[in-house]
Amino acid sequence: MLNQALHPQVLLFDVNGTLLDLAPVRRSVNEVLLDERGASLWFSTTLHHSLVMTVSGKHADLMEIGAAVLQMLARNRDVVIGTEDARQALSAMRSLAPHPDVLPCLERLRRAGYRLATLTNSSKAGVEAQLKHAGLAGCFEQRLSVETPQLFKPHGDVYGWAAEEMKVAPSACMLVAADGWDVAGAKWAGLQAAFIAREAQQKFPLAELPDIDVADLAALADALAA
Amino acid sequence: MLNQALHPQVLLFDVNGTLLDLAPVRRSVNEVLLDERGASLWFSTTLHHSLVMTVSGKHADLMEIGAAVLQMLARNRDVVIGTEDARQALSAMRSLAPHPDVLPCLERLRRAGYRLATLTNSSKAGVEAQLKHAGLAGCFEQRLSVETPQLFKPHGDVYGWAAEEMKVAPSACMLVAADGWDVAGAKWAGLQAAFIAREAQQKFPLAELPDIDVADLAALADALAA
Repeated sequence: MLNQALHPQVLLFDVNGTLLDLAPVRRSVNEVLLDERGASLWFSTTLHHSLVMTVSGKHADLMEIGAAVLQMLARNRDVVIGTEDARQALSAMRSLAPHPDVLPCLERLRRAGYRLATLTNSSKAGVEAQLKHAGLAGCFEQRLSVETPQLFKPHGDVYGWAAEEMKVAPSACMLVAADGWDVAGAKWAGLQAAFIAREAQQKFPLAELPDIDVADLAALADALAA
Repeated sequence: MLNQALHPQVLLFDVNGTLLDLAPVRRSVNEVLLDERGASLWFSTTLHHSLVMTVSGKHADLMEIGAAVLQMLARNRDVVIGTEDARQALSAMRSLAPHPDVLPCLERLRRAGYRLATLTNSSKAGVEAQLKHAGLAGCFEQRLSVETPQLFKPHGDVYGWAAEEMKVAPSACMLVAADGWDVAGAKWAGLQAAFIAREAQQKFPLAELPDIDVADLAALADALAA
């Protein structure tokens, strides 16, 4: 069982935070909110509202939700910001740099025979722009976005759909993510999961444990391609 | 249409924040997190993770999710807190005082012929304890909790289920809530909705507008029972 768990056929990589460093967006949001911890609240509230839409049968671009939430949080701090300015404050999202451990890890995993894809809450156009700017566009067989199923992660159907797109069973896929809630959803949907403990990320205590729990992507490559 | 919109048969009241003052829980969470703005992040992350469970087909008591999230956020601040201590920090949730505008409003609305119920993300035992302590237990025909449908608000099925329990069409119900996301979900589910602009609460800009948008429950009673 252990060996099988460590030999998924397909690795599905979360993008924001897992592959790409969100620091420039954090800085930009903190500046709007005049609060050096504002970005944590913005991320959390944006993720909440993405699921508010999903459980209501609605969908919108994650950055449109993020801009709306930024306006809500700004108003609570007596800062008025228009929709266009809120979008502009989030524009750094499309030109994020990869974490330094990303490219070496992806190359090792490809050489070891794994099939690689992204699975992101970003829109299709968003993830294309992000990967191109980060120099990662050629690393993935498919660049899957929740825009196609019109459901945000961690809705169980998103993971099942991704496995179908890759033409394998859910159990043959491993989600790789730095968000505890993403790992939780993938495990509950029957995928394998690897948690990457990036800064200020925690596993969700009510979820199943991930199959792999490592500090960074170098350690993931060690575990999967040793 | 306006008159009909302002004459719902059933008023469904959100409890936490709308009827009850969450200030003691805010203080308690801020103390654990050593951060005077920690509670906002805790509320947001707890709500996010409640929906993480709903979109994964899972359910747990909101305060169990809240305790798990408190442990996650504490670890990010190098504070270690056990499960029991996290639950204890949230125990104030069951003994909250009502906002001062609540009882007069509920009495006016009952005298005006409205049928009143709660609709809360708290558990059944949780809302019973909350309403008893707040002296509001006798104000409601039914005390509905998401524990029965095992889905958190704002999942559309929760509102539809609540209307069924009250034996009316969704359009004959009005949700009354201080959370923009709750009002958003109710409107998308075909209910009427009243937004109560409690401190630090904002409407979700991507949602439909509420039928009533007022500063407090006294103004709601003026609008509905004038």
